Amino acid sequence: MGKVLVLFDSETGNTRRMAGYVAEGARSIEGTEVRLLSVDDASREDVLWCDGIAVGSPTNMGVLSWKMKRFWDREMWDLWSKIDGRIGCAFASSGGWGGGAEITCQSILTVLINFGYLVFGAPDYVADRFTLHYGAVAAGEPRHEREIAACRKLGERLAYWVALYSKK
Amino acid sequence: MGKVLVLFDSETGNTRRMAGYVAEGARSIEGTEVRLLSVDDASREDVLWCDGIAVGSPTNMGVLSWKMKRFWDREMWDLWSKIDGRIGCAFASSGGWGGGAEITCQSILTVLINFGYLVFGAPDYVADRFTLHYGAVAAGEPRHEREIAACRKLGERLAYWVALYSKK
Amino acid sequence: MGKVLVLFDSETGNTRRMAGYVAEGARSIEGTEVRLLSVDDASREDVLWCDGIAVGSPTNMGVLSWKMKRFWDREMWDLWSKIDGRIGCAFASSGGWGGGAEITCQSILTVLINFGYLVFGAPDYVADRFTLHYGAVAAGEPRHEREIAACRKLGERLAYWVALYSKK
Amino acid sequence: MGKVLVLFDSETGNTRRMAGYVAEGARSIEGTEVRLLSVDDASREDVLWCDGIAVGSPTNMGVLSWKMKRFWDREMWDLWSKIDGRIGCAFASSGGWGGGAEITCQSILTVLINFGYLVFGAPDYVADRFTLHYGAVAAGEPRHEREIAACRKLGERLAYWVALYSKK
Repeated sequence: MGKVLVLFDSETGNTRRMAGYVAEGARSIEGTEVRLLSVDDASREDVLWCDGIAVGSPTNMGVLSWKMKRFWDREMWDLWSKIDGRIGCAFASSGGWGGGAEITCQSILTVLINFGYLVFGAPDYVADRFTLHYGAVAAGEPRHEREIAACRKLGERLAYWVALYSKK
Repeated sequence: MGKVLVLFDSETGNTRRMAGYVAEGARSIEGTEVRLLSVDDASREDVLWCDGIAVGSPTNMGVLSWKMKRFWDREMWDLWSKIDGRIGCAFASSGGWGGGAEITCQSILTVLINFGYLVFGAPDYVADRFTLHYGAVAAGEPRHEREIAACRKLGERLAYWVALYSKK
Repeated sequence: MGKVLVLFDSETGNTRRMAGYVAEGARSIEGTEVRLLSVDDASREDVLWCDGIAVGSPTNMGVLSWKMKRFWDREMWDLWSKIDGRIGCAFASSGGWGGGAEITCQSILTVLINFGYLVFGAPDYVADRFTLHYGAVAAGEPRHEREIAACRKLGERLAYWVALYSKK
Repeated sequence: MGKVLVLFDSETGNTRRMAGYVAEGARSIEGTEVRLLSVDDASREDVLWCDGIAVGSPTNMGVLSWKMKRFWDREMWDLWSKIDGRIGCAFASSGGWGGGAEITCQSILTVLINFGYLVFGAPDYVADRFTLHYGAVAAGEPRHEREIAACRKLGERLAYWVALYSKK
């Protein structure tokens, strides 16, 4: 069984909805167990539990939200470097295209790389002119099919890499 | 007279079109002289000439194109640090949303910061869910009004900062 | 009078010491008024007050600290885009070379660009093999002359650009 | 047999020397076959051949060198997305601390993520105040033990992840 955690912070509910689609995508790979948790409810045990993690945040000033950052700075502090070699990826909602969602994904990947994760994006186009090279992104509420498809694809890729690589 | 250079690399013509709109925006600020040049035709003298520069590139693997990089690595090499304190910004076309245009803009800003430029993005929303926080971005051919507006806004802001700050 | 704010977060005291040197550098430009404030004591009024800002953070997982992020996410929220056109720069302490201080500076610049700041680094070498291209960096306690010189240079450049550009 | 490619661009010889140490580190994991190639001599077949890749570049303006970029933009173009799921990492020499080596590593990781690689850094400290969180870095010629150790550790981690994960 591959274990996947979808961990998100959300203020308006947009990142929460993205997280739900990411979790759906992860469940589409057979034999994957998925936990979907807000950063308000997650603990270090959830992160320790999983083989792969997708971390989502609103685009707050181009960098992951302070609450998500606090989780990694404080809650995860003493697990630093003890969870290396696992697999991670990112997603971010934003106020608009060009508003920093990609750069926010990059800041999430930076945190995960720091902890020793192997991180990835997906080359796949999920619709005309829509992809998730550095993580899944959305502008406003993720209600267009292409944004939903990007989130699902991210979760699916995560669960796939976990299934392939995490036979420890 | 504020002097603005719009410097671009373009393979498909998309970044070239963006560059034209950026130049239009710059000209909208009275008293601004604008040069619009492909990286194939520009020289270090053009960069020396200008008070403000907008640098545009296609999104090639999330980093400015090798030809634009070569221009700064080789042609500009001996001007390194001699043009500090000027003003710079970025724009990038891409194959799709989530494809790396923001991150490509960031790589352009990195090069400009390295040379000592003061770089900026624009908080302004130019349409519903469309902005240019780290530079102007487009997916495919920039034919939607919002993408054109983002390019114009970038040029306008550049010329505005140049007019305000470059009374040396 | 140019007004400069040196705003920092510090846990171990290392970033606090860097901040002191940055402030010293800023004061070396005649006619510069400097405020040196921990993020625990600063308010939005301090940020509104200044023409130029240097923001410093420990390198926590390669991204500015959650407390510094919270300041910009919450305290500064309703000033977003209202302080554009000002000048900003970054500094970061870290546990070691290769540990992410440069990338943390970049994350700070990302936040500042988002708010509409014109941001800069410095091409200057302050010692053999030591510079501050994306902001001043230190590994551990900043007690070597080169690290102190980098902080001073950053403050000096900030006050210099403010003096040159902020004659509004 | 895990297959590792160490691919580098070098002008002064510094990155070349780093590459040699990275290759040494990779060979320290039993059963690893290593190719060490300059970007002038490498072809897409070498990249296709390997399970894991370490890409090194001088720090040219904070972004990988134009020659290394050209390799991925042109030579690798039609392999885009066909080599996803492999493992990658970065290293960079620079003119000095604070000069952009970390940010250059990040630009290399961006290119690799774009191609679908799973990328990593290493939490490990290899000496007092010296680590390789986003890839191995050096200032000037890599002749200090700590810089050499960082390069070796990077290669070793790469070969280790390849051995663990690439039993396809």
